[in-house]
Amino acid sequence: MTLRFLASPINPADINQIQGVYPSKPTWTTGLGTANPIAVGGNEGVAEVIALGEQAKSAGYKRGDWVIMKGPGFGTWRTHASATPSQVVKLEDAAREGITPIQAGTVSINPCTAYQMLKGFGELKEGQWFIQNGANSGVGRAAIQLGRVWGLKSVNVIRGRDDKEAEEKLKKSLKDIGADVVITDTELQAQGIKDQAKEWTNGGREPIQLGLNCVNGKAATAMAKLLASDSHFVTYGAMSKQPLTIPASMLIFKDIHFHGFWVSKWSEKFPDDKKKAVEEVLELIRKGEFKDTPVDEIKWEWETKGEELIAKVKDTLEGYREGKGVFVFGKT
Amino acid sequence: MTLRFLASPINPADINQIQGVYPSKPTWTTGLGTANPIAVGGNEGVAEVIALGEQAKSAGYKRGDWVIMKGPGFGTWRTHASATPSQVVKLEDAAREGITPIQAGTVSINPCTAYQMLKGFGELKEGQWFIQNGANSGVGRAAIQLGRVWGLKSVNVIRGRDDKEAEEKLKKSLKDIGADVVITDTELQAQGIKDQAKEWTNGGREPIQLGLNCVNGKAATAMAKLLASDSHFVTYGAMSKQPLTIPASMLIFKDIHFHGFWVSKWSEKFPDDKKKAVEEVLELIRKGEFKDTPVDEIKWEWETKGEELIAKVKDTLEGYREGKGVFVFGKT
Repeated sequence: MTLRFLASPINPADINQIQGVYPSKPTWTTGLGTANPIAVGGNEGVAEVIALGEQAKSAGYKRGDWVIMKGPGFGTWRTHASATPSQVVKLEDAAREGITPIQAGTVSINPCTAYQMLKGFGELKEGQWFIQNGANSGVGRAAIQLGRVWGLKSVNVIRGRDDKEAEEKLKKSLKDIGADVVITDTELQAQGIKDQAKEWTNGGREPIQLGLNCVNGKAATAMAKLLASDSHFVTYGAMSKQPLTIPASMLIFKDIHFHGFWVSKWSEKFPDDKKKAVEEVLELIRKGEFKDTPVDEIKWEWETKGEELIAKVKDTLEGYREGKGVFVFGKT
Repeated sequence: MTLRFLASPINPADINQIQGVYPSKPTWTTGLGTANPIAVGGNEGVAEVIALGEQAKSAGYKRGDWVIMKGPGFGTWRTHASATPSQVVKLEDAAREGITPIQAGTVSINPCTAYQMLKGFGELKEGQWFIQNGANSGVGRAAIQLGRVWGLKSVNVIRGRDDKEAEEKLKKSLKDIGADVVITDTELQAQGIKDQAKEWTNGGREPIQLGLNCVNGKAATAMAKLLASDSHFVTYGAMSKQPLTIPASMLIFKDIHFHGFWVSKWSEKFPDDKKKAVEEVLELIRKGEFKDTPVDEIKWEWETKGEELIAKVKDTLEGYREGKGVFVFGKT
């Protein structure tokens, strides 16, 4: 089938992939007319089916269908592509009703990461607590909102800002979408944090039983110290570029279990679970219960120059930007 | 009921408890005739029932029965004690047949730790591999032997010795009880170890799926690097007094799960499982399939001076001794 892309985000993992430090490799090909094999960047996105053959028809596809990528490595930073049904997942008509291309194009990675980390470790029940760092990231905001919908309570750690007004504004924005407690990494590592955590959690009677970590280093160890015995701690990123350091007593006596989570692997291993997660999140978006992460729309029209697009990727590569960059394709 | 102790070992955890750095506290009492509460050291041991009241009788006890401690904190470094049935576990007559007091008195902690770590994480099946450090410790030797009996294969890491002849002798002694591979920590951290591990494990077709760690620090991280994806790594000690440092990729991309194990907590939570483990190990001892760890017998007779006993405890406190110290009580 032939696809026309509608929206494709720039995720940190895409950058790592280009840098060659990501274990999942892109697809190299000479099929795009180059003498030497090249690869197209981008792992996430939504596309419209604009033409299809017998194989796609008998698999139930029709013109105008929206598809997302089944796994990583497809190369979504392009206007058009040809694909086989095995490379994509169809968004059913009911699922995409009222959903914008940006929403559909960014649902596979961040919201699904938050979804599965909250569901897959320790079976949190209504009223129970989790703690996370990087809480204003795409995954962080998704976890806050899914947690709120599922009746979970959250302690959210953000990096402190020099601009205290901006910091307060950020804290408020996370509380607005459902964060119960928001603190900075400095507050997390201050003395007396254990007593404070007790206060938040009804005198410790509602223990914190899950930690979600995308930072690593000292701040992650400090976060793990607030967990109750027999909790789970899930690492899905390492923004500090530090390893995770765990005191022996946290393993032996507190019996905390340390895991990692990689959404690509999960998607490949459990495609049906991923489809379910995607549909559930889209349904929440439709009902207004799940707000988009702030995005920076990057128009990709017929006349857009390659250099402009490359510059936008470099912006992400070089670090901090408020809002995730998303290529939004013109109808060409 | 009144107990007469037969054999009580000196375990490293007993020392930590005296030092006040162990989370499980001893039982403080004035019942031994002191003005201020005191506590008796020792957490493991076997005792004979020498007198009993109605409560113990109706719980099925009789004179001459052997009992081990149900949980930690009883205080086993003493000749006699009174206990309630809830504090002890009876060794059935069949279970203690042909078993020496030293064997019965040392079965609860080290062999049970090895037993449950091999059983409880990742469900290893016949022919599968585990790797462990501190392989010549009591737990290490128990893991080698239980592994051999259950058809598991093991890579065993020991500290290198300056005396190479002694090192070879130690390697051989572990192979004699069933170790498939024995290497030193230096060999573990040398280049080319991954290729070597492939050779041991049939070209990597028999991946190493479980790690048992009582060392921590760099040597533990090096050991975790030999594990296959989705393996489990269990920490039960930290002889290096270092934390465990985990690179993010080991969590996220290799999906290794890091746990701790504390035999005291497990015993309290699953007393029936512990009883089963004890009986299974005693049965193996009886059949000659499980050899005792080398012990250093410390006679505790009527005429033994307190200072002599204290000196023996200090020996253990100050570090290295070949063979575990075990108090063996004279019939007084």
